[in-house]
Amino acid sequence: MNDLKQYIETHKERFLEELFSLLRIPSVSSKTEHKPDMLKCAERWKELLFAAGCDCAEVHPTEGAPVVYGEKIVNKNAPTVLVYGHYDVMPVEPLELWKTSPFEPTIIDGRIYCRGANDDKGQSFMHAKAFEYLLKNNELTCNVKFMLEGEEEVGSKNLYTFCEQNVEKLKADVILVSDTSMIDSDTPSITVGLRGLTYLEVEVTGPNHDLHSGLFGGAVANPINILCKMVASITDEKNRITIPHFYDDVLTVSNEERALMAKAPFNEEKYKEALDVKELCGEEGFSTIERTGIRPSFDLCGIWGGYTGEGTKTVLPSKAYAKLSMRIVPNQDPDKISALFQQHFEAIAPKCVKVKVTPHHGGNAYVSPIEMPAYKAAEKAFEETYGKMPIPTRSGGSIPIISGFDKILNTKSLLLGFGLEADAIHSPNESYKLEHLFKGIETIVWFYRYFEKKKS
Amino acid sequence: MNDLKQYIETHKERFLEELFSLLRIPSVSSKTEHKPDMLKCAERWKELLFAAGCDCAEVHPTEGAPVVYGEKIVNKNAPTVLVYGHYDVMPVEPLELWKTSPFEPTIIDGRIYCRGANDDKGQSFMHAKAFEYLLKNNELTCNVKFMLEGEEEVGSKNLYTFCEQNVEKLKADVILVSDTSMIDSDTPSITVGLRGLTYLEVEVTGPNHDLHSGLFGGAVANPINILCKMVASITDEKNRITIPHFYDDVLTVSNEERALMAKAPFNEEKYKEALDVKELCGEEGFSTIERTGIRPSFDLCGIWGGYTGEGTKTVLPSKAYAKLSMRIVPNQDPDKISALFQQHFEAIAPKCVKVKVTPHHGGNAYVSPIEMPAYKAAEKAFEETYGKMPIPTRSGGSIPIISGFDKILNTKSLLLGFGLEADAIHSPNESYKLEHLFKGIETIVWFYRYFEKKKS
Repeated sequence: MNDLKQYIETHKERFLEELFSLLRIPSVSSKTEHKPDMLKCAERWKELLFAAGCDCAEVHPTEGAPVVYGEKIVNKNAPTVLVYGHYDVMPVEPLELWKTSPFEPTIIDGRIYCRGANDDKGQSFMHAKAFEYLLKNNELTCNVKFMLEGEEEVGSKNLYTFCEQNVEKLKADVILVSDTSMIDSDTPSITVGLRGLTYLEVEVTGPNHDLHSGLFGGAVANPINILCKMVASITDEKNRITIPHFYDDVLTVSNEERALMAKAPFNEEKYKEALDVKELCGEEGFSTIERTGIRPSFDLCGIWGGYTGEGTKTVLPSKAYAKLSMRIVPNQDPDKISALFQQHFEAIAPKCVKVKVTPHHGGNAYVSPIEMPAYKAAEKAFEETYGKMPIPTRSGGSIPIISGFDKILNTKSLLLGFGLEADAIHSPNESYKLEHLFKGIETIVWFYRYFEKKKS
Repeated sequence: MNDLKQYIETHKERFLEELFSLLRIPSVSSKTEHKPDMLKCAERWKELLFAAGCDCAEVHPTEGAPVVYGEKIVNKNAPTVLVYGHYDVMPVEPLELWKTSPFEPTIIDGRIYCRGANDDKGQSFMHAKAFEYLLKNNELTCNVKFMLEGEEEVGSKNLYTFCEQNVEKLKADVILVSDTSMIDSDTPSITVGLRGLTYLEVEVTGPNHDLHSGLFGGAVANPINILCKMVASITDEKNRITIPHFYDDVLTVSNEERALMAKAPFNEEKYKEALDVKELCGEEGFSTIERTGIRPSFDLCGIWGGYTGEGTKTVLPSKAYAKLSMRIVPNQDPDKISALFQQHFEAIAPKCVKVKVTPHHGGNAYVSPIEMPAYKAAEKAFEETYGKMPIPTRSGGSIPIISGFDKILNTKSLLLGFGLEADAIHSPNESYKLEHLFKGIETIVWFYRYFEKKKS
């Protein structure tokens, strides 16, 4: 066993206890009731950054959740790595589907089950431990800066401002981000593309109060019936989005690149089996990998209205609601898409109802250049730990701030993700493999070793 | 002031206290947690029947909520009236829309606000007080039987059995039911038609667990998207129901009857104003009164799925649900309609999802003959209290057991309703006008006076 593996083995229990201390804090950014938990989690990160060896570590208040910043400057002329991660997590509902307590990390069959175990407490924590190892072994030849925010899951609004106000402080040669997945435990991959996002909420109002569905049914517009008709019409029979001008800015991906994408290992039967679906469903003319990687999508993330309790209630409700997201691709602008949706939704609303559209957060898509030194260093790092070169892939997910970094800080990001689809992030029973946690730390250490060489 | 008005005036406070004692019991039949309240409410009714002067009053256990039965036999050869009512109420959600506590009767501006104030505790209570008056004043020349059930809002399943087992006991010349509305406070009306009902619940399952809407969105069927498309297709652009054979058994109403219906006072502008809607919406080719009176309808009574909490959550959920009701008209069979819906819904489900259809309760439509003596007596009774003849109307609501009475007991029902649309039954802030409560008692007393004459 080499020194690195030995170090991880020796400090395993402490590593887990440190990570668990973050996981136990229910830092759900979308719920105001968790505001105190956001500060608690930021403070805990500050302690962990000091403990890992940072010269300074600070909790910066913002208008929302605070930003944690820490750094170790070894040499003003050495290359600088900015590590970005987020300590906020998704809501845990539906609670009844969790097999363990969502904020009590529990190890079962080599996996840590907990909200945030992967996304992104587990993945960002690996960077602190890789940094600790390099520093303790006098191997750190890069300057390292850490920036952890608490609003990634709700659009990073205040991190944009923080970046704008701290361009000099955040200066770096590359931004390292572990918040994505790899193909499988034996197939390392680096995410080179991310979709962007537009998230909106709609409210449809029929009569001004709930009505008896017998006395009024058939004569007065039912807002649930109308909402369903309206959202149903947003996609056509080819599963294309019907909003006028929606596809105007979509970059066409070349046949060459599509051919390359088709070479990534993908077993459709296994994919369907894991989800227990008989058939997949998506835009006509594109493969599954293309549908999530290079094409936009429209998903209802939530819907509610009327009586949803036990048994029956014959009611024609006053209101119906939906939350929806559109994943967008390179060159589509989230604000423009949001406005197009709003305009369209208002235009298709029949006169018998009132509609209200509330845009939530959004973010641009991102494409990472595979020619940059950091990418080459990451390739070699994966080769050291996995014995094979990582495959460049495009993820359907979104990390809106990544394109913001590019614009505000003029710095490219490298998406060094160690998650798996099976980790069920954003879902009940989120988990993270211990094997990936430890191999991730190793790979990051190797990244620094090669990155320094590449740069100098 | 005549004796009858004087009696009501003198005993007003006691009447209200008695009614309030029923209203305070949260007898929500669709929720199992309220099982003890059903028994409590039945026992309270039994006490009130004894107090009003019944010779016997019993609480009959059933497999569900108990049936209360009481009677006063004055003369075996005299005509017999069976009073039917229900002591169960609708759920009270959404709670936040109530301006008063839903189970604490509160009088504001001449109205009692409380769940059940009208439907049907308030309306059925009038019968006990009219009976009390007639008995105390030695005016009762009919036999009176009372039957109060606790499952009307959930389909009266066990009352069918109770009726089948007690055909002799329940023998009567007419069944009196106050569970409907009149046109307005100055325009008495008698409901001569009721729609039937079919109520179902559907569940659409996409993937076997909630997914990240970025990683999977666009490639895996979203059950909310699919549910919306499926239910949206149940009605067409003319607001007709698209289920094959749905209209096969609908009785065509003659142009003569439609012309008569068109004469009932109806102010569309006021109707829209009261509901705060710009336009009405219903089946092409029919008026508003026809749409609720003689045509079937399809309403989503509830829908839910995915994330419905505060803020945002980007999720592609595993399941989506809806509760829906179809109001049916004379000659349509609820079981047949339920089966047609199920068959159709399963047939239109795309292969990328699984669907489950659960039928709830149903009931036939009903048409009451206006030639029967009880109807004529009721006409005269209204004339006494309101100074004008009541208008025969058709209601869009359903009281499934009414057609059951016809079949099992071979007895016609007379729908002597004193509610108003403004009473918001089934909705938050249900209320009942004190004026209607007291005028209702008067009218019922007059009904007995004329009914006895008609019969003898």
